[in-house]
Amino acid sequence: MAKLDNIVSLCKRRGFIFPGSDVYGGFAGTWDFGPLGVSLKKKIMDEWWKFFVEDREDMYGIDAAILMNPKTWEASGHTATFADPLVECKECKSRFRADKIADGINESVTTEEFLATHTKCPVCGKESWGPIRKFNMMFMTHVGAVLPDDDQEVAKKGVAYLRPETAQGIFTNYKNIVDTIYPNIPFGLAQQGKAFRNEISPRDFILRDRECTQMEIEYFVDPATWEENFELMRTLHHEFLEDVMGLPKSKIHELEVPAEDRAHYSKRTIDFMFDYPNGEEELMGLAYRTDFDLMNIEKASGKSMAYRDKTTNETFVPHVIEPSIGVERLFLAVLSSAYTEDEIDGEKRTILKLPENLAPFRFCVSPLLKNKPELVEKAHEVYDKLRKKYGNVTWDDSGNIGKRYRKQDEIGTPSCVVVDFDTMSDDTVTVRDRDTTKQTRVKINDL
Amino acid sequence: MAKLDNIVSLCKRRGFIFPGSDVYGGFAGTWDFGPLGVSLKKKIMDEWWKFFVEDREDMYGIDAAILMNPKTWEASGHTATFADPLVECKECKSRFRADKIADGINESVTTEEFLATHTKCPVCGKESWGPIRKFNMMFMTHVGAVLPDDDQEVAKKGVAYLRPETAQGIFTNYKNIVDTIYPNIPFGLAQQGKAFRNEISPRDFILRDRECTQMEIEYFVDPATWEENFELMRTLHHEFLEDVMGLPKSKIHELEVPAEDRAHYSKRTIDFMFDYPNGEEELMGLAYRTDFDLMNIEKASGKSMAYRDKTTNETFVPHVIEPSIGVERLFLAVLSSAYTEDEIDGEKRTILKLPENLAPFRFCVSPLLKNKPELVEKAHEVYDKLRKKYGNVTWDDSGNIGKRYRKQDEIGTPSCVVVDFDTMSDDTVTVRDRDTTKQTRVKINDL
Repeated sequence: MAKLDNIVSLCKRRGFIFPGSDVYGGFAGTWDFGPLGVSLKKKIMDEWWKFFVEDREDMYGIDAAILMNPKTWEASGHTATFADPLVECKECKSRFRADKIADGINESVTTEEFLATHTKCPVCGKESWGPIRKFNMMFMTHVGAVLPDDDQEVAKKGVAYLRPETAQGIFTNYKNIVDTIYPNIPFGLAQQGKAFRNEISPRDFILRDRECTQMEIEYFVDPATWEENFELMRTLHHEFLEDVMGLPKSKIHELEVPAEDRAHYSKRTIDFMFDYPNGEEELMGLAYRTDFDLMNIEKASGKSMAYRDKTTNETFVPHVIEPSIGVERLFLAVLSSAYTEDEIDGEKRTILKLPENLAPFRFCVSPLLKNKPELVEKAHEVYDKLRKKYGNVTWDDSGNIGKRYRKQDEIGTPSCVVVDFDTMSDDTVTVRDRDTTKQTRVKINDL
Repeated sequence: MAKLDNIVSLCKRRGFIFPGSDVYGGFAGTWDFGPLGVSLKKKIMDEWWKFFVEDREDMYGIDAAILMNPKTWEASGHTATFADPLVECKECKSRFRADKIADGINESVTTEEFLATHTKCPVCGKESWGPIRKFNMMFMTHVGAVLPDDDQEVAKKGVAYLRPETAQGIFTNYKNIVDTIYPNIPFGLAQQGKAFRNEISPRDFILRDRECTQMEIEYFVDPATWEENFELMRTLHHEFLEDVMGLPKSKIHELEVPAEDRAHYSKRTIDFMFDYPNGEEELMGLAYRTDFDLMNIEKASGKSMAYRDKTTNETFVPHVIEPSIGVERLFLAVLSSAYTEDEIDGEKRTILKLPENLAPFRFCVSPLLKNKPELVEKAHEVYDKLRKKYGNVTWDDSGNIGKRYRKQDEIGTPSCVVVDFDTMSDDTVTVRDRDTTKQTRVKINDL
């Protein structure tokens, strides 16, 4: 099993992921994607978009703003309840998420319950706690001409939040879409975009960051058919994760969330858990949200969320099945499944066994020797040819051939194409396979 | 010339762009992209990425976090100077951007200069003004466990901003990229992502919004070669705007920004202006930023930003050429160039003459009559075939054929394919051209 530290280190070394604001000593809970990371992230997102939106007739894309009218978060319940229990050490003033530093309590812990655990401050070691307070995880800002010395009344009017989920950007657009696109039910609205959560203690690399990219679908259905549509989404997501993302079936575990642990609006939730390097963690969620969100919006906006079925002429407020994926979680699942260490002829190597559709580069082309102009020229010809055909092809003439293979193995390039002296006479090249390290002679035109 | 109002109305009617948080009465300065808008926006962004990153060997993609260490904005000068002049009416307490409500003054107006214009309050009509104050346009938030009743000292420690430009996400990653990818100079780092500006009065549809998507390149060059690289970027951008985006050359005007109007760090800036429906406005900027940003980071971080040229072994801090495009501005340029009204046989129609590579749908397929099962079935066959080949194909069997043509004209679909009774015998279909409305008979296999 891959270790998280090794993956984090590979990510930085090869330009997949750097700590955010690294040059200034970082900024907790933020991560920047380097050239190879962007490539992999884009491929994951593009495959999702193709699979769920472009290749389906029942799905429509949307892209809503991150800053939304604050009524959104009152109606959705986030203003009141999107909070973690915060506790402060009266001695050293350090603050913690209470349920993370004490055993046997959960997010709804009371001050009394927390004090009864007799937890010591992880920083100063004292046991001197203030009361448990609810810390809202939404990032607050002010929109419009609010000045730093404005009184509370004025400032309050400009309050807005960074969206803590992309879902509400879909629900608030439901009515406009129904009125302009007239979709047949069931239909899905799909969105990719940033969401923000002010985690008290971000951790676990990109698994619990303060800024993440979500890919969410709200699938609107006739309430009578929710079960079959829940099954449809479940099947589709297994197909996507296993066949398109190439994740091993054996690492994905469905967790049927029991009624007492589900959000109050959900009648069924399955968490898709994944065997990450640090243990089993949520990869994505699939929830039956009923009409909870649309009814909240109907109440808060005074506008009807009813849908008229074109065939039956029946009118109803649709119910919703919501599959929700965090791109960073999927990225780490892909990376950690691909991460492999093995030994070839007594030499250790690290390989990313990425599927061909996700590897940043499909081919690496190089001349056997970089000081032979005729080899370099010929290799460039092959490189240009493959680039035109596949797009994602890289060039490497650094170091010796063995070193190049090691590097391409580490960044997951499935095939290395090497131009040597035989190429000059018979137009064949050596193609070296990443996973088997086997080398075969192939005609350039058959590549 | 297209009118902005007509475009805004088409955008809402057909599901390109809705006002943000529309169901709650909107949220000034934010806009949501509907199904067709997402499609067009994605195509614009994908073409840019392909043209500037994937098809070039000297460009690398990155994707930095929106929340950055606040030292970034001190070093870049944004904390001190990214501000508009704000003035408050003492009578009715309304606030305005001083340079927007008075004539003949600019952003650096003083209180005395403003009072001398004897401007009346646009809301209450009085002339009773407070002093000009600098209003910083960065959205401020707090990161980490800061509570609403914390004193200023504690709160200050958690202050962070939504990035007002994507550029600094590139500059702060420069060193990590140089250390991991070893690019040959000149090289560019390219990024697409959201940026936020707290405009006092957002206006002009998506031209001056509070949240926009930027596509920026920082092109790092040997200082001795800045002029030729400036020319390279200039040529490439004309090619991109005219050949890939299909914008008419006649609507793009280069504005050589005179020394006194340039940012203090810039030695040359060209604004690419565009003839928008409401007049000439900036479409994109091309600036020679010298080593201003890298040197600021070097000073603030204490880390060397020097680059060692692999061929000459010379060491220097690269200078930077920066082409910067706002996706929404480009989106509106594409849309307003495509927007056409004409008259066919005495009937008015609206067409979006979008280039084929940007149109949300390449083809629309429909049966001549929707109550003839054999036509519907055959049309579905053709639809599936084209979808497999082109991807972006839509189905339309609503209303009569004339109405369908009008709708497809309005959303810019280049060709409508209609299956009729002749199709059943000779496997040909009617292909109707959006721009000419000419209809031709084509073999299905030749589509």
